[in-house]
Amino acid sequence: MQSRRDWLRSSIGLGGLLMAPSSLLSAQERAAYRPRPLENIVRLSSNENPYGPSKVVQEAISTAFDHACRYPYQYSDALAEKLAKKHGVGPESIIITGGSTEGLKIAGLTFAHNGGEIIAGQPTFLAMMDYAKQWGASIQWVPVGADKGYDLDAIENRISSQTKMIFLCNPNNPTGTLLPAQKLKDFCQSVSQKTIVFSDEAYYDFIEEENYPSMDTLVRDGQNVIVSKTFSKVYGLAGLRIGYLIAKPELAAQIRKNVVAMSNVLAIAAADAALQDDAFYSFSLAKNREAKSKIYALLDHLKLDYVPSSTNFVFFHAQKDIRSLGPQMLEKGVRIGRPFPPFYDWCRISTGTLEEVNRFVAGMLEVYQG
Amino acid sequence: MQSRRDWLRSSIGLGGLLMAPSSLLSAQERAAYRPRPLENIVRLSSNENPYGPSKVVQEAISTAFDHACRYPYQYSDALAEKLAKKHGVGPESIIITGGSTEGLKIAGLTFAHNGGEIIAGQPTFLAMMDYAKQWGASIQWVPVGADKGYDLDAIENRISSQTKMIFLCNPNNPTGTLLPAQKLKDFCQSVSQKTIVFSDEAYYDFIEEENYPSMDTLVRDGQNVIVSKTFSKVYGLAGLRIGYLIAKPELAAQIRKNVVAMSNVLAIAAADAALQDDAFYSFSLAKNREAKSKIYALLDHLKLDYVPSSTNFVFFHAQKDIRSLGPQMLEKGVRIGRPFPPFYDWCRISTGTLEEVNRFVAGMLEVYQG
Repeated sequence: MQSRRDWLRSSIGLGGLLMAPSSLLSAQERAAYRPRPLENIVRLSSNENPYGPSKVVQEAISTAFDHACRYPYQYSDALAEKLAKKHGVGPESIIITGGSTEGLKIAGLTFAHNGGEIIAGQPTFLAMMDYAKQWGASIQWVPVGADKGYDLDAIENRISSQTKMIFLCNPNNPTGTLLPAQKLKDFCQSVSQKTIVFSDEAYYDFIEEENYPSMDTLVRDGQNVIVSKTFSKVYGLAGLRIGYLIAKPELAAQIRKNVVAMSNVLAIAAADAALQDDAFYSFSLAKNREAKSKIYALLDHLKLDYVPSSTNFVFFHAQKDIRSLGPQMLEKGVRIGRPFPPFYDWCRISTGTLEEVNRFVAGMLEVYQG
Repeated sequence: MQSRRDWLRSSIGLGGLLMAPSSLLSAQERAAYRPRPLENIVRLSSNENPYGPSKVVQEAISTAFDHACRYPYQYSDALAEKLAKKHGVGPESIIITGGSTEGLKIAGLTFAHNGGEIIAGQPTFLAMMDYAKQWGASIQWVPVGADKGYDLDAIENRISSQTKMIFLCNPNNPTGTLLPAQKLKDFCQSVSQKTIVFSDEAYYDFIEEENYPSMDTLVRDGQNVIVSKTFSKVYGLAGLRIGYLIAKPELAAQIRKNVVAMSNVLAIAAADAALQDDAFYSFSLAKNREAKSKIYALLDHLKLDYVPSSTNFVFFHAQKDIRSLGPQMLEKGVRIGRPFPPFYDWCRISTGTLEEVNRFVAGMLEVYQG
């Protein structure tokens, strides 16, 4: 068995899979977006953006300290006005929430409690369905297709008189798949005549396809479509807990009264600054692309199948049970994604900093080639 | 009609009701707790603590910036351990929430949805009852007594087979009243045999009575008592949204699964630092006492009845409809408390900085002696 150093050294030869960290950021980038110190355990398990919050956002938070003794309601109204303009809707169509998770949970609670049905792909992000189930909803699970993407025809076929909502996460977590734009739009337009379509767009910013539409366009058209957005991903604010829903006024009013926590003054200040910080936005997207390339190169090298990703993570065929790969990788200092049944031999790995991804690469080489 | 300046000048004669702002804080206090610039409209409407967050807490927040890209769950677990120690319970008895408001709402939802009854004094803080009503709870309202305090005997008499919970806010918002310690404890001990007693202790820190017990003592004894606490008041963190519930493990488990948003990384860092910032805690209490004395002096001068307050606000008999006094005071630059039916001729005024309270005093003198 080789030592850790040996592995690192030998893997550097693998088509540049590992590079010295100092080469990963330009001097200018380094000044602007100081890389975080590597922790003992690298978290590549939660699709966080390790470069956030940006310097600009940190300054905005500090500037808001004097307001942190005030309840957040007046501040959230001001942010909602700006978000409404961004999406071409009225402020009554924006519901600010404690992360998009609160939006997902209360939408599920609002529309599907006491026996209502939600149709959802499997696997997908579970916050809405898990919460709604606790309040008596029943879930119609529709397995993803061979390409790991949603099977929209099968989803449409499951609609019944009991259906209260269809949940789409697009790009999908954990598979990273993106629905074809026209197919998605046609589906939402046709199906929202029969039930509510919920479009979770947490990973929308990472889509590489030009002019890929947000379903906010259908909200503007007055359809039964709810869109959720978050500041946790490309903006790197997962710890601050701020997201929002976009829905036509009638739907928004039903959901808004069920909000439990809403967001907080510092998150609202951060989100406001983040929306204007184009440099960090572009930087995050560029770094994510680099990290994904490195992960793809590793998986190609190890001959492990993966799904081309429109997100900040990669879903790959580990060819091992994730319940044993998880602890093995943790020993190498890397926390990988949790199991996503029924794909127990698949793994979701988040893009971290390139240094963090190097740790993942080194750990994987040890596990798979050790 | 005298000018605003004349009023300010003449009121300075009123037993020192108004003092020059520079005399209100010592040089040392000024350095440590820089008073906020007075805004156009002074907010004495929401029982906030205008001195928060303290410098120590602000530094703790800044130190946590590098963690703000991470989801908060691992951080909240560490805080829960500390809170558990503080209250002499196990960590499984602590539920961290997005302000205590989230705790109130989800407790109401958990125990009283679909027709369950909550018994509550009137007037009191409404977050739990308003939310639970939306989910089908019915509320048994029990008017406060002549002293504006809870009528515990009448509350006990309302218990029926439908009762799911009794809500006590003690000291009570908006009346500022405190229940006699022994009477409260006896009530909780006896009544929690029949139903859950929820003790909202948002204003507990402001109690002047020595050794006044928190109902966490009954949680430790395994009773059906839920205690809520917040960092919004004496700690001055209302904008950060962090509070917690304390309950025996069986009750806590039922509530925990219904948490919607939880708190955020910066609030958790702030709360952790605030718990150790004894200087700011004492400072806040001292400033609150000073502000209350000034409000009492004004009300004595105007011969308006008030309830001696165990909180950071004063409930007084305005002898005018609050729905007209509100706009009148807003014209003077002061936002006072909202109406608390059925006491439409009573007003709740929060303690602000002494500068802010001076604004309130000046405005009141204009309205009542103009």
